[in-house]
Parts: sequence; structure tokens; C-alpha cells
Amino acid sequence: MSLLVTGSIAIDTLETPLGRAENVLGGSAIHFALAASQFAPVRIVAAVGEDFDHGLLCCFDGKHVDTLGIEVRKGSKTFRWHGRYTQDMNDRETVEVRLNVLAEAGPKIPPAFRDSRYVFLANTHPALQREFVDQLSGPDLVVCDTMNLWIETERAELLKTLGVVHGVVLNDAEARMLTGRTNLVSAGRAITEHGPRFVVIKVGEHGSLLVTRDRVCVAPAFKSERVKDPTGAGDSFAGGMMGYLAAAGNDDVETLKASLVRGTVAASFTIEDFSLDRLRVVSMADFERRCGEYFDMLPSR
Amino acid sequence: MSLLVTGSIAIDTLETPLGRAENVLGGSAIHFALAASQFAPVRIVAAVGEDFDHGLLCCFDGKHVDTLGIEVRKGSKTFRWHGRYTQDMNDRETVEVRLNVLAEAGPKIPPAFRDSRYVFLANTHPALQREFVDQLSGPDLVVCDTMNLWIETERAELLKTLGVVHGVVLNDAEARMLTGRTNLVSAGRAITEHGPRFVVIKVGEHGSLLVTRDRVCVAPAFKSERVKDPTGAGDSFAGGMMGYLAAAGNDDVETLKASLVRGTVAASFTIEDFSLDRLRVVSMADFERRCGEYFDMLPSR
Repeated sequence: MSLLVTGSIAIDTLETPLGRAENVLGGSAIHFALAASQFAPVRIVAAVGEDFDHGLLCCFDGKHVDTLGIEVRKGSKTFRWHGRYTQDMNDRETVEVRLNVLAEAGPKIPPAFRDSRYVFLANTHPALQREFVDQLSGPDLVVCDTMNLWIETERAELLKTLGVVHGVVLNDAEARMLTGRTNLVSAGRAITEHGPRFVVIKVGEHGSLLVTRDRVCVAPAFKSERVKDPTGAGDSFAGGMMGYLAAAGNDDVETLKASLVRGTVAASFTIEDFSLDRLRVVSMADFERRCGEYFDMLPSR
Repeated sequence: MSLLVTGSIAIDTLETPLGRAENVLGGSAIHFALAASQFAPVRIVAAVGEDFDHGLLCCFDGKHVDTLGIEVRKGSKTFRWHGRYTQDMNDRETVEVRLNVLAEAGPKIPPAFRDSRYVFLANTHPALQREFVDQLSGPDLVVCDTMNLWIETERAELLKTLGVVHGVVLNDAEARMLTGRTNLVSAGRAITEHGPRFVVIKVGEHGSLLVTRDRVCVAPAFKSERVKDPTGAGDSFAGGMMGYLAAAGNDDVETLKASLVRGTVAASFTIEDFSLDRLRVVSMADFERRCGEYFDMLPSR
């Protein structure tokens, strides 16, 4: 099935206890697309400024990533983010952020992309997420991400967006903030009452939780000592998950569970090096080997 | 295989956002024994005061729990603990604690119990844990618990104890404090360097992690909305785990993984009601049904 992602393209400067990377490619749409392309062709919709160096997109060479929907906005500059992680890498501070093109109107979905069947709306203003949905011709599965800012400041808009998507991906703090419930199963259930048929709650180093109206499933993180830069872990996770779902062409609970494993494994590669440096060189054989290691890590009947 | 637990017997007063229970039976040895007895006969070694009401032990009626090693100390009083949980039940404060008999010399292991093959040393001073080991005749598997207090104040004694046990069970904060490492796999590996061949790191609502010198396994918590009182979750977990290992008669990695599931399921029952009220009425059929639900919750190959 065709897979579309709407999201950001960033120039990142990253500081972690294990090093520093300056002016490297990042952004939700990029991390998502690289992970998803392991499983299915991906279409990107995002905006960059005139300053954007298209040479950075070489990370997609040889991958099934269609960059037709990357709009180069005249007179604008590309989004820039400078982040610094804490010692345990579970938290980070923004040293500097320049929204630039992200503060302007959103990009349009090119006509050739409007028939996309599987769609991921990476984090942005919830009204803009709905604008994207309105440009599509009846997709089969739309999943959105969000963030604490919108939960606090644009709650009504966010609830409207939840009413038009089939699934949502967010983290534990966001799920609790959105619902006022501390138990994550209760929080997930409460979110399904706004519309989505499934909710994926990311719990950082602990992995993720899938909540539907009648099922709860859990995909622990791949446990590793090799963590160099967590940037993009959440978007790679969503990419692996959606890429697998698009390739499978359905989203029943067993397929969703299997998709969480692929998302988890994609994220586990992403965090092993800065930016896209690790995930871009991962082969399908590497991916399958790690899925095997993942299942070995879990108890089985 | 014969299974022995050394630990505490407490009279608890518990306050959680969902209720209050006064002067109920608790303590590590009690929660451990009730859970372990689902799988194997259990021998308890613990001390109580003259004030102890033996009628409280009716929770063991019909279970394979040998209370011969419960010493009633003349002139002493039973350990009492009054705890209050935070709204999300992930944290708690001690409202009042009276160590009473726990502040005195430890109980002795009765001669009839000294041939125990599987042994769990619940949390107490690490030197006392070694005293218990010294009274045994070459057990097959000794696993200990510990706490932040001993890591901070009795580090040298604790490291000696780690040198004489085969396994250790502790929580994430303790593993990090003990090793100075934030990554839990690294922390677990560092602990194995002090002697234990396996380390089980409990991560509260997220479940547990098993680390050996060459393997990492993970057993997520059983996800449920029914949490009424978390007291005893950790000791029930250890009880389910050790009971299963004693019944299996070995501790290879696959058996350890399976034992974590039984520990997880035991803990999931414990937290559904105050004190022992839920776990004491759980049948083997209930237990097996929930193990099935647990595996349904996990991704599979």
C-alpha cells in the first residue's frame, strides 16, 4: 500500500554525553521515511527553506523514498534545532530552536500523492494535520503524532484531529496529560473514546504499549548498551511501524503487534549513532537478524 | 526442589488513592511465600514478637507453606510499617515505621531447613544475609534482594554478599546507585562482575529485565487498570520466580525467562487488592489463564 508522511525536515545540532554532531539532517519526516522505506515505498511531504542543501538527501539514495513533496519555500529558511541530552539520555533540553519555515503555512500534498492509502501525520499543529487529511482521497489508515504543546494550548483542535484519525502515537507523559489518567491502559482507553481505534504509547527506554478498545499489548524496547544519540527514535519507531503496516495492508491487532516490533527495531538502530548514520547503512538482513534477537529477548509460551 | 525464604513478617497499615487497610499481614517473607507456594512447597524463616497474632497466618491454610522457622521472640514486638502511596502509585512515603524485632539479631535457620536447595534472601542487612547462607549445606541456588540503604551505608558488606549468591533481584534505582551506570543493561552486567550469574532488575510498572554475562531478556509487566495496593508486588514477583525455578529444578536462561513470567503474574494479582486478599484466593487455573493472557499481550515470531 502507498505510504505518505507529513512532517518536518530539520538541520540539527546534537550534543549527547557521547559526542556532538553539527548541522546534520534530521526532522520527523526524514527519520520516519528512512525507517519506513525498509518495508514500503514512502512519499514525503515537508517544507524546507531556500538554504536547504539537497545533497543531504543522499541518505535516501537507493531507497524507495519519493521526495517530490518536499517544497522549497522561496524567501524562507529551513527549521533548525540544537538539543542537548542529559547524562542518562532520557531527557533533553533545547539549546536553540529556529522554526523558520515551520512557522509559516504548511506544505501542500502534491496531486500525485493524494491517493496515498496509509498516512502518518508527524507532530505539527493539529489544525494543519486535519488540513493534510482533507487533501487526501479517503485513505485506509491515518495515524497522527502530537506533543505536549498542543495538548496544553490547542486541546480543542487536537480533539477534533483525534476524531478524524484511525490511530495515534504519543508518549506516556502526553497520554497522561491529555487524559488526566496516570494508569497508561486507562489513558489509552480514554483516548480511543475520542475516535482512534488504536493508541500507541511510547515509554522511552521501556518500549511501547498498544491500547485498543478491547486489547492491550506491549512491545518492550530492544535492550542494548549502544546508545549514542536518541534523536529521531520516536519517528523511526513510527516509520518502522507504519512501513510494516503499509506492506501488510492491514491493521488488525496481530499485525499491529508485529509492526511495533519493526518500529522498535528501527529505533534501536537509530539511537546507535548520530543523525541517520546507523539506520542508513542497515540492510534487510541486519534488520531481520535483530528482529530474531528481539524475540529471543522475550519470554515465549 | 526445597525452597527457603528468609525475610520479614510485618503488620502493615496501608493507604493508597483507592483505600486504606489497617494492621494487615505483610512483610517480604509472607508475600514471597504465598506467591511461591503456587509452584513449590516453601519454608519460611523470620522473626515476630510476642504480640504476633498467629491467626493472621490463616492465609497459608491449604498451601504448602512450612512456618516452623517463624521464631516468636520473647520480649520483642513484631515489625510494623505504615505507608502511603502517591496518586500514580509509583511512589510511596513511610508514615511510620517500628523496626522492633527487625532491629535485633536475625532468626536462626532450623536444622530441618538447612538442606534447602533453593533459597531467597529477602532484603535485610547484607551481613545477616551471609549469616543465613553460612547455616545452609551447599544450596544449589541462592538469590538475594537488597535496598538503597545498604548500597549507601554498607557497600562493602553488600559486595561481599554478592560474592556468595548466584542471583540478585533489585530495582532500577538500586541497580543504578550500586554501579553508577544509567543504562540498565550496563548496570546489570557490572553487577555480575561481583559474582552473581544473573541479575533481575525490577522496573516498577514497566516490568523487569534479566541480565546475565551474555544475555539480556525482558518481561514487561502485565498491563492492567486494576491496581489497588502495590505493597508486596516485588516480593510476590520474587516468590513466583523462585517457586517456578524450584519446581523446574534449574536456572538456565530459558527457565529464568519463564520464571519471570510467573513472578510477573503473581505480582499482577497481588496489586489488585490490599495485603494478601487477592493472591490468596487465586487458583492454579486463574494463574494459568493469566499466563495465557500475558503471552497474548506480547508480540510473537
